[in-house]
Amino acid sequence: MSSSVSPLAPTEIPEMPAIAGVRLATAAAGIRYKGRTDVLLAVMDKGTTAAGVFTKSKCPSAPVEWCRAKLRNGGSKGSPARALVVNSGNANAFTGKTGRQATALTASIAAKAVGCKPDEVYLASTGVIGEPLDATKFNGVLGTLAESAAPADWMDAARAIMTTDTFPKVATATVKLGKTKVTINGMAKGAGMIMPDMATMLSFVFTDAPLSSSVLQALLKSGVEDTFNALTIDSDTSTSDTLLAFATGTAAADGAPKITRAGDPRLKAFTKAFHALLADLAEQVARDGEGARKLVEVVVEGATTKTSARRIAMSIANSPLVKTAIAGEDANWGRVVMAVGKAGEPANRDKLSISFNGIRVAKSGARDPSYNEAEVSEAMKAPKIQIKVSLGLGKARDRVLTCDLTKEYVAINGDYRS
Amino acid sequence: MSSSVSPLAPTEIPEMPAIAGVRLATAAAGIRYKGRTDVLLAVMDKGTTAAGVFTKSKCPSAPVEWCRAKLRNGGSKGSPARALVVNSGNANAFTGKTGRQATALTASIAAKAVGCKPDEVYLASTGVIGEPLDATKFNGVLGTLAESAAPADWMDAARAIMTTDTFPKVATATVKLGKTKVTINGMAKGAGMIMPDMATMLSFVFTDAPLSSSVLQALLKSGVEDTFNALTIDSDTSTSDTLLAFATGTAAADGAPKITRAGDPRLKAFTKAFHALLADLAEQVARDGEGARKLVEVVVEGATTKTSARRIAMSIANSPLVKTAIAGEDANWGRVVMAVGKAGEPANRDKLSISFNGIRVAKSGARDPSYNEAEVSEAMKAPKIQIKVSLGLGKARDRVLTCDLTKEYVAINGDYRS
Repeated sequence: MSSSVSPLAPTEIPEMPAIAGVRLATAAAGIRYKGRTDVLLAVMDKGTTAAGVFTKSKCPSAPVEWCRAKLRNGGSKGSPARALVVNSGNANAFTGKTGRQATALTASIAAKAVGCKPDEVYLASTGVIGEPLDATKFNGVLGTLAESAAPADWMDAARAIMTTDTFPKVATATVKLGKTKVTINGMAKGAGMIMPDMATMLSFVFTDAPLSSSVLQALLKSGVEDTFNALTIDSDTSTSDTLLAFATGTAAADGAPKITRAGDPRLKAFTKAFHALLADLAEQVARDGEGARKLVEVVVEGATTKTSARRIAMSIANSPLVKTAIAGEDANWGRVVMAVGKAGEPANRDKLSISFNGIRVAKSGARDPSYNEAEVSEAMKAPKIQIKVSLGLGKARDRVLTCDLTKEYVAINGDYRS
Repeated sequence: MSSSVSPLAPTEIPEMPAIAGVRLATAAAGIRYKGRTDVLLAVMDKGTTAAGVFTKSKCPSAPVEWCRAKLRNGGSKGSPARALVVNSGNANAFTGKTGRQATALTASIAAKAVGCKPDEVYLASTGVIGEPLDATKFNGVLGTLAESAAPADWMDAARAIMTTDTFPKVATATVKLGKTKVTINGMAKGAGMIMPDMATMLSFVFTDAPLSSSVLQALLKSGVEDTFNALTIDSDTSTSDTLLAFATGTAAADGAPKITRAGDPRLKAFTKAFHALLADLAEQVARDGEGARKLVEVVVEGATTKTSARRIAMSIANSPLVKTAIAGEDANWGRVVMAVGKAGEPANRDKLSISFNGIRVAKSGARDPSYNEAEVSEAMKAPKIQIKVSLGLGKARDRVLTCDLTKEYVAINGDYRS
């Protein structure tokens, strides 16, 4: 873990309200780290529904396979959820048969602690890959946590799931569902090995709104496209990326309508708030990219299709040469052209325009005649850099978030077996 | 430019023989650098044929477009070549109409100096992108170079085309064509912004063998696949990548047979030597990757197809997390699994085996039972690291070369506008 907090950390941390039906507790189980919490237990009331989206890795971790199976098998029963167990320090990935045994044992210990079926337990792990996870360490710990779980400990929960993160990531929103106020709380951990599809390694969203699991799943699916999936730190995709959402439905007691169809018009304001919360968490992950000193927003417009715009934006956002230039506060548009060119998407060099933080540096495939080095250099000192590329071919547009590539990234990943 | 030579530089530099029909000269034209040569002129005898392969960037440089047009238009006439002009310091890329004018002016100055048509002049430029190249600087310089050009200055030539390279890259081979000894000389410059398809930014190969341009082109095409195109430094593809080959045919006077068909059986030994020379140059480029401290060979075997093996090998070779782990001398097989998983190619986690420099660390999707941390740590100190992944699915195999990712890479690219 890095000792200093990212200079891009949000200056305001929201007050996290309780979500009726959700209780949290954390502990230091000594899985890998010393002197910090590394286990989170979330206990949820009966009637809670679940949904999830996961890494597209062909070599997913054991907890990812566990959650996928629960959601698949539980779908007909509305994917009931009673507990979430998250540990940091060990990803339980590439651990073979032992890995599957560890997930089953963890779920069984949690089920006993909470008083539910193992199938109602969701799991996520983050940390070192390839080391067996000793699930017997959860024995006792989860029982104690189930007893002490309380509604208010959101910051502690966000801290317990961190690995190389330099700050805990939380977000909250309240919104009307029907005439009833409902709440959405989210947390995330990110840092490195982050690229679609799923950008963040772990993120969990909870609400008291009464939503069926199919509605929750639809909200996740529509929400990740322009948030977590439009985010890259280093182009690497984790075996463990997990975004889970849980709806306790407790707000129904206050009159919130039960929503069972994704197209329900009463869901409009909720959908907007839910997507904004995912966007907030995704941006926090970018702000805490390993070694990041600059938040970088890449906007591609004038593309033939949105898919094409996304591919070009990702090519720019993943280019080590672009990212090191930003770290060096160099408005090196030549490298941006390079990254546009290598994307393999429709592009006409002589129609390209490029700007950094609103200052156009290149126009019609050459340096902008009004280019002023001093002005641009000053602009590049900002902590947030927007690179905008206008392709001049069509009307499609897209945006991705990333961060710069610094020596600190190399130091973190050259020294730490994560 | 970096001040210190890469620790991976070859310890033996070959004695470069002359190639009959090729004369070389270099000069300091002050295009960007001070106190070093930055222009190479190669003058070739009448009857010389040319061939080339280029970047697949959608935004290629003006010299790339120039060479492509010459090879296309000259194809029916055997692509005659009389001169090659290479400059470092300015890539003449993303320079719009000015860029095209600069190539035309450079070719016209060179044609006058050498006494040939502008269509017989080939061009390559490397260096900063987006800055207009002032081709009037070649006025006078190329005339002087044409007069002083001599057969022996291969090392000087390789030096003049360097940018962030820390050592000049040359290779030579002699081989029988028919009963006559013929020679192949090559040079390359690389360093950063290197990824297929074309790995090296610039490479030039010369031979006195009497080969038609179509034969030369076939040799390049078959030769690059497992050499320059199996090489990545940082996943970035230059707008300027160029590999040109020239055959003077002067060995015909000594009895070498004229080869006009790529399938000619007399070409067998030559083809082997030609491919080996390309492989040699490509490896030198990997050894001089910006900031490189380790040469990394990624071997993927047991894949369903060679294309699949290549994609997985490239996914590993381009992973910042794998590359920083190698820099940190950490046999982090978990990151290798991650890179296999994100490639999107057929892979079965539980059949994977991974070894570093011959020591198996993972087997059947979990840590090798005989894993010995001390033994592996010792092996990771070597300057050359082989990562071998056995997928256990089929019989296809592939290999790519790369280097580690160090703080020095970030320093070079965060400070130098290249």
